[in-house]
Amino acid sequence: MTEVSSVCPAVVGGLASGARPGDALDALDTPSLILDLDAFEENLRTMQVLAERHGVALRPHAKAHRCPDIALRQIALGAQGVCCQKVTEAACFAAAGLRDIHISNEVVGAPKLALLARLASQVQISVCVDDMRGLEALSAALLAQGAHARVLVEVDIGQKRCGVQTPEAALALAQAVHRLPNVEFAGIQAYHGGIQHVRGHEQRRLASERAARRITRYLKAFARAGLDCPTVTGGGTGTALFDAASGVYTEIQAGSYAFMDNDYGQLDWGEAIRFRHSLFVLTTVMSTPTALRAVTDAGLKSLSAESGLPRVPDAPGVRCQAVYDEHTLLIAEDESARPAWGSRVRLVPGHCDPTFNLHDEVVVLRGRTVEAVWPISARGLSR
Amino acid sequence: MTEVSSVCPAVVGGLASGARPGDALDALDTPSLILDLDAFEENLRTMQVLAERHGVALRPHAKAHRCPDIALRQIALGAQGVCCQKVTEAACFAAAGLRDIHISNEVVGAPKLALLARLASQVQISVCVDDMRGLEALSAALLAQGAHARVLVEVDIGQKRCGVQTPEAALALAQAVHRLPNVEFAGIQAYHGGIQHVRGHEQRRLASERAARRITRYLKAFARAGLDCPTVTGGGTGTALFDAASGVYTEIQAGSYAFMDNDYGQLDWGEAIRFRHSLFVLTTVMSTPTALRAVTDAGLKSLSAESGLPRVPDAPGVRCQAVYDEHTLLIAEDESARPAWGSRVRLVPGHCDPTFNLHDEVVVLRGRTVEAVWPISARGLSR
Repeated sequence: MTEVSSVCPAVVGGLASGARPGDALDALDTPSLILDLDAFEENLRTMQVLAERHGVALRPHAKAHRCPDIALRQIALGAQGVCCQKVTEAACFAAAGLRDIHISNEVVGAPKLALLARLASQVQISVCVDDMRGLEALSAALLAQGAHARVLVEVDIGQKRCGVQTPEAALALAQAVHRLPNVEFAGIQAYHGGIQHVRGHEQRRLASERAARRITRYLKAFARAGLDCPTVTGGGTGTALFDAASGVYTEIQAGSYAFMDNDYGQLDWGEAIRFRHSLFVLTTVMSTPTALRAVTDAGLKSLSAESGLPRVPDAPGVRCQAVYDEHTLLIAEDESARPAWGSRVRLVPGHCDPTFNLHDEVVVLRGRTVEAVWPISARGLSR
Repeated sequence: MTEVSSVCPAVVGGLASGARPGDALDALDTPSLILDLDAFEENLRTMQVLAERHGVALRPHAKAHRCPDIALRQIALGAQGVCCQKVTEAACFAAAGLRDIHISNEVVGAPKLALLARLASQVQISVCVDDMRGLEALSAALLAQGAHARVLVEVDIGQKRCGVQTPEAALALAQAVHRLPNVEFAGIQAYHGGIQHVRGHEQRRLASERAARRITRYLKAFARAGLDCPTVTGGGTGTALFDAASGVYTEIQAGSYAFMDNDYGQLDWGEAIRFRHSLFVLTTVMSTPTALRAVTDAGLKSLSAESGLPRVPDAPGVRCQAVYDEHTLLIAEDESARPAWGSRVRLVPGHCDPTFNLHDEVVVLRGRTVEAVWPISARGLSR
């Protein structure tokens, strides 16, 4: 059989949105991932101001967007660097000009460690460890490349995912970092993803305090052992307000704050801080088979639904009932509220991170006019 | 600002898996989407034989895989053509050599209709309608291009998504197709996605029968009006056994049968037909922080979880507890069952369609050796 697949990429290139600066919102084909620049920029400023007020660094999580153009704007506003979750993702951001990248994850396997070492010879790389074998392999890969990296011991403060379970285990790893070549001990990573999404403001504050107390146990063990622990990195959008003020974290890793998906949008944010929805999937109503039903042309391949259904921000009398592979089913309270056949509907995705990862580009709008089209260059880079 | 993003694609190209025919499974980097050719080919034959035994056409749904190399193998075995859900997806399959493509969906909006008309001037295209305005716009777009397309009226047989609600509405659309230029009435599409996933074999059989009775109401109305209805297309993997034998469908649209995700894997399949898991996400255990916990390096960006968690087919004592953006958390029954740090674990994704759409390629294995790497060329083409 001839290699027919080779025909496709050219075609596919021609199937991109074709959106250009100056285009009207109404002219965009759907589904399109769109970013409201005014809301986005306000969100960036809000979090940066919060971090600076408390004297902590902001290191936004680039896994939230996988878009170098967004990361560069976060850096320009004062962010310390970015977090990436994967080495290939980090390589993409390094190529785009980011100079200080923290891989907020354990890296296991020879091809990944070799790429990490190559990156570390070009930009400042830090990375997590929670296992002696992983640390030894990291050190060996860096030594082979003649590169150096900063190492953070990941500690489990209640997330029950990765990370060492006791201060003694953390200390053993930190001491090993000091012994091994080409690695430098930089501190600990303490991230609790679960508490980011606790709905109540006061409950979230208490959860953040409990997490901070767990971190303090680790810091005391380091102090008793006479080990310096310059960096405590962690926190997220949901608890940033409390984490920044805790006196425990030196660096906040929030990512979703720039976009505010529907899951985060349902939190009680209290009075002190507020983020706006900036990220939407623009859709077209492709079927109105009954008086109350409207079906749009974006489904699971355009927005992520594992953290809950999308919201219809511009139509209060309309709720999303289901998301299928290529359809979203909307139900109106009454006939007059139902979006019209052929009309455009914006959806707030349930979860921003995997939604960005479904798109090759985000169309950036100032008001109702396209200002830019930013490639989501690290889309699909999960190795 | 310089266009830094333009640096990335070159880098990203270098970040592909790099898998080559002849490579060993054990040499693949992770996460990788992998296909077991023996199981896949057996699944293709099983469904083709079922269709032929009952004298119905098989038109596999390409939205399940978005991979032209897979579609070409389905055609080679005797499939009539393919279904696509989106026009851009159809364009990719047309470029790859598919000559008979059914767009099993309504198409709304000028750019989409213009592309559809261009495609219809090159290959045989059929498409669904459920609205008179949609039909008129389709006819006008085809006329402008000098192209012709076959039209199927979509009828709602209980899915409660798109499709007309009554035989009278279906008849009115069919008669309009006969009046309008450049469109040819080909029949009806009757798809009920919900009943595909009914777990019990007998319950699924009864649901398929109810759907077939609803279709019969439409067919009787067409007969009474003296309208020929040559095609009844629909059905899916879960009900194919019953749909093929129903005497109502002329064409079956199954897609997942080639792969068998974990959702379909949990159905009671009875004795008459059986499909095997052929699609897996290959992962590495990147953290074993406790005696019972193993964390792998594939998350929501490598496998879809909105239809349920993945399964660990090779480790009976291990279950998946959670899928995060870039991690899957596995819990072992006891310490001896826990996958080792650094070991490889295959996961059966919960839902195959959106999982394929997360990957740029699928690595195709004969036993434990790479036989080919197939591009998922229509990945991301949802317009």
